[in-house]
Amino acid sequence: MNYRSVLKVLAFLLLVTAACLLLPALVSALYGDPDWPHFLASAGLGALIGGILLLLVKDAPDLRVRESFAVVAFGWVVVGLLGAMPYWLSGQIPSFTDAAFESISGFTTTGASILTDIESRSHGTLFWRALTHWLGGMGIVLLALAILPLMGVGGMQLFRAEVPGPVAERLTPRIRQTAKLLWAVYFLLTVLETGALMIAGMGFFDALCHSFATMATGGFSNNNASVGGYGSPAIEWIITLFMFLAGANFSLHYLALTGRVKVYAKDEEFRFYASIILASSVLIAATLLAIGYYPTRMEAVRQSVFQVVSIITTTGFGTADYLQWPPLSHALLLILMAIGGCAGSTGGGIKVMRVFILLRHAKYELKKMLHPRAVYTLWFNDRALSPTLLTNVLGFFLLFMLVYVSGVVVLTMGGRDLLTSVGATAATLGNIGPGLGEVGPASNYSGLLSWEKWLLVLFMLIGRLEIFTVLVLFLPEAWRRS
Amino acid sequence: MNYRSVLKVLAFLLLVTAACLLLPALVSALYGDPDWPHFLASAGLGALIGGILLLLVKDAPDLRVRESFAVVAFGWVVVGLLGAMPYWLSGQIPSFTDAAFESISGFTTTGASILTDIESRSHGTLFWRALTHWLGGMGIVLLALAILPLMGVGGMQLFRAEVPGPVAERLTPRIRQTAKLLWAVYFLLTVLETGALMIAGMGFFDALCHSFATMATGGFSNNNASVGGYGSPAIEWIITLFMFLAGANFSLHYLALTGRVKVYAKDEEFRFYASIILASSVLIAATLLAIGYYPTRMEAVRQSVFQVVSIITTTGFGTADYLQWPPLSHALLLILMAIGGCAGSTGGGIKVMRVFILLRHAKYELKKMLHPRAVYTLWFNDRALSPTLLTNVLGFFLLFMLVYVSGVVVLTMGGRDLLTSVGATAATLGNIGPGLGEVGPASNYSGLLSWEKWLLVLFMLIGRLEIFTVLVLFLPEAWRRS
Repeated sequence: MNYRSVLKVLAFLLLVTAACLLLPALVSALYGDPDWPHFLASAGLGALIGGILLLLVKDAPDLRVRESFAVVAFGWVVVGLLGAMPYWLSGQIPSFTDAAFESISGFTTTGASILTDIESRSHGTLFWRALTHWLGGMGIVLLALAILPLMGVGGMQLFRAEVPGPVAERLTPRIRQTAKLLWAVYFLLTVLETGALMIAGMGFFDALCHSFATMATGGFSNNNASVGGYGSPAIEWIITLFMFLAGANFSLHYLALTGRVKVYAKDEEFRFYASIILASSVLIAATLLAIGYYPTRMEAVRQSVFQVVSIITTTGFGTADYLQWPPLSHALLLILMAIGGCAGSTGGGIKVMRVFILLRHAKYELKKMLHPRAVYTLWFNDRALSPTLLTNVLGFFLLFMLVYVSGVVVLTMGGRDLLTSVGATAATLGNIGPGLGEVGPASNYSGLLSWEKWLLVLFMLIGRLEIFTVLVLFLPEAWRRS
Repeated sequence: MNYRSVLKVLAFLLLVTAACLLLPALVSALYGDPDWPHFLASAGLGALIGGILLLLVKDAPDLRVRESFAVVAFGWVVVGLLGAMPYWLSGQIPSFTDAAFESISGFTTTGASILTDIESRSHGTLFWRALTHWLGGMGIVLLALAILPLMGVGGMQLFRAEVPGPVAERLTPRIRQTAKLLWAVYFLLTVLETGALMIAGMGFFDALCHSFATMATGGFSNNNASVGGYGSPAIEWIITLFMFLAGANFSLHYLALTGRVKVYAKDEEFRFYASIILASSVLIAATLLAIGYYPTRMEAVRQSVFQVVSIITTTGFGTADYLQWPPLSHALLLILMAIGGCAGSTGGGIKVMRVFILLRHAKYELKKMLHPRAVYTLWFNDRALSPTLLTNVLGFFLLFMLVYVSGVVVLTMGGRDLLTSVGATAATLGNIGPGLGEVGPASNYSGLLSWEKWLLVLFMLIGRLEIFTVLVLFLPEAWRRS
């Protein structure tokens, strides 16, 4: 590990974040809120530390595989901590633990909150919460396209295997070009959603913040009762649609925008993603209708679809307290939490594509019982998957389960009940937000102990950086001097 | 599928079961209980159907790979249903669903019961419950050694890979010889336990029944309050020891009995098994001590060790209502339920060896992040595991999780709460017995609906026959005529 190379990139990240902090300062100043100096001070702090660091290590060598893990993991921590400064300095969030929780929950697009009265917050605070989502959500594409290929790891292979047709070919030689195109799609969808929400009656500020949170599959809302607080079916349907798009592969959106709309129907992951949503929504709506939970059939359908899409895309917006729904919805939502969005989306979780590959592998293993000497090749979107990719996906799944189980053990060890521990671990590791039990959709994370909050922050980072990047740093050999 | 070949073996199985039914008839007659004719009638019924079948299909050809799955799966169903006849005919269990549940729970060594007042039952009934355990527990060795090799499947490869030294070499040429040796070990340990329990003050009848249930990792007790009902620490420690032995690989016991005691220390699976038990017991005892749940330190340790060993070996004997313990024990016991016993033991679950291999694979995948071009070979007990074995273990794990998740979805769909659904599925699929929630250690399965009981019976069979054997029958090509 060359520490100077790592510090150089961290310095750059601090400068970028400092520049971003000028935006909420501007927003608060425009709305006449008193906390703009705190945003400005945080920006200055970031610029100062970043600048000094850069001067000290400006001639450090370039990154190699080993350093890039440290850069990504510590980069997210450093950015998250700087992002917590304005919350803390302005006194909007008096505890630094809480401020860091809120900031990292934002950047990782988790959307788990410790704020109790959201509506009374300054415009700068609300805007910064939404902006951290948006920056973090875009991060996934940047990471996948700009950082992972440097390391020659499975993420890139996964990405390449799942993008249908021409883009996959183009990715390696013109990686920055592709990143820019996907960024443009992200920007465009955010603008479209903001417009749609305003037409449905939402004010510009709330529409922009919710669009940031939707497209990043984040989940912070400006409303105490989340999206449900607006009481508008039109707004809920619009957000459902854009959450659905944010949870799909952005390469498909790019291809569709250039006229190849059929890519959706051809993509096996997208079809599976849509099928899971359809099946889960129908099942949950049926149980809600069976007990007459909602007055009208339409409302049961809307609530069910909204919650299913919100959870599988790992957004975590709420319109209902699903803990009050029949038990089937608890089971299905827990499963959806683990599945997560599509590869190449801004969603978290295991990813639909990995689940699809695992299920197909399980089916082949079953067939092998009948034909022990047959050799099966795993196909995905008309491409044969290499055994290396399969074992990598399996490794990811196992590590995900391992972190999950360890999280539940540690939280219950501290005395937290099983349901809350399961819900909190699933909701942070999957970057969802609301969990079950004491951290369900009708409550939030403010009641947890400090060490529990820091543990959940770690899970948010592990989930956001797709397990390997963080866990690899726990191997002693990652730290060997070269 | 050649149905005549299948029917021939089923006929043999019915005759064997009919012969076994003569034993409880004798027991009830000896103790002067009025239900001995019902056992005799059941034996007669089995002999009649089996005999007629055999006459009809006696010239059927031998089994091939495809038929052996059907034989194993349907064999267990047929034997289980015949075993339910005496409960039902004697009126001890008035509902046939309940009688079948109790019988198949016995044969699969699950030990989940629908009986509410156990102590008032006839000696024949109690003896038959224990004997079904013992026959089913021995079945795993017979299955692994006698049936699986016919099919050339992973179970045999697994077995071969995990048995250290000479026996593994000897297994293929002299399969019946090895089966007999393991059977002898099973018999010897049962005799030893019966003697030990009698010395500790238990009567002969109860000692024999509990030894059957222990060595098979079954869990039926003659006492309403299970093993805890005897109120004897000595009895609890003896049963703990024999459960621990029953959950370990019987090949190790054979080698140890022939003087090679060091095999335990050398076997990676056994070491891992012992470590999990030690770590879990210490953690649970510590939380029990921290809240002063038991009056003495010794009692907290005994209760903790007993429950940990009872659950990981999938026996399911109880000495305490662990639902009243702190949350950590719920999380740990759920994990232990999934892990299960060692390969080649009478325990259920995923098996310690598979978990060990999966964890080692996950670690290698993590290391590959740092060294993308390195090739790792999975080692287990100084043998390199083939990639085929690894993908088979992964396939098993995925199918196990899939059945588990499906079970929870179906049970919650029927309106059962999440905790009970999770507990009931885990406890039956893992062949444990007591679960969580409404089917916890202080209650039983009598309150469930009929369809729920049949679903859980299916899970017991799937778990007992190691997933593949049952699930493969759901593939249409298993039924193709040849």
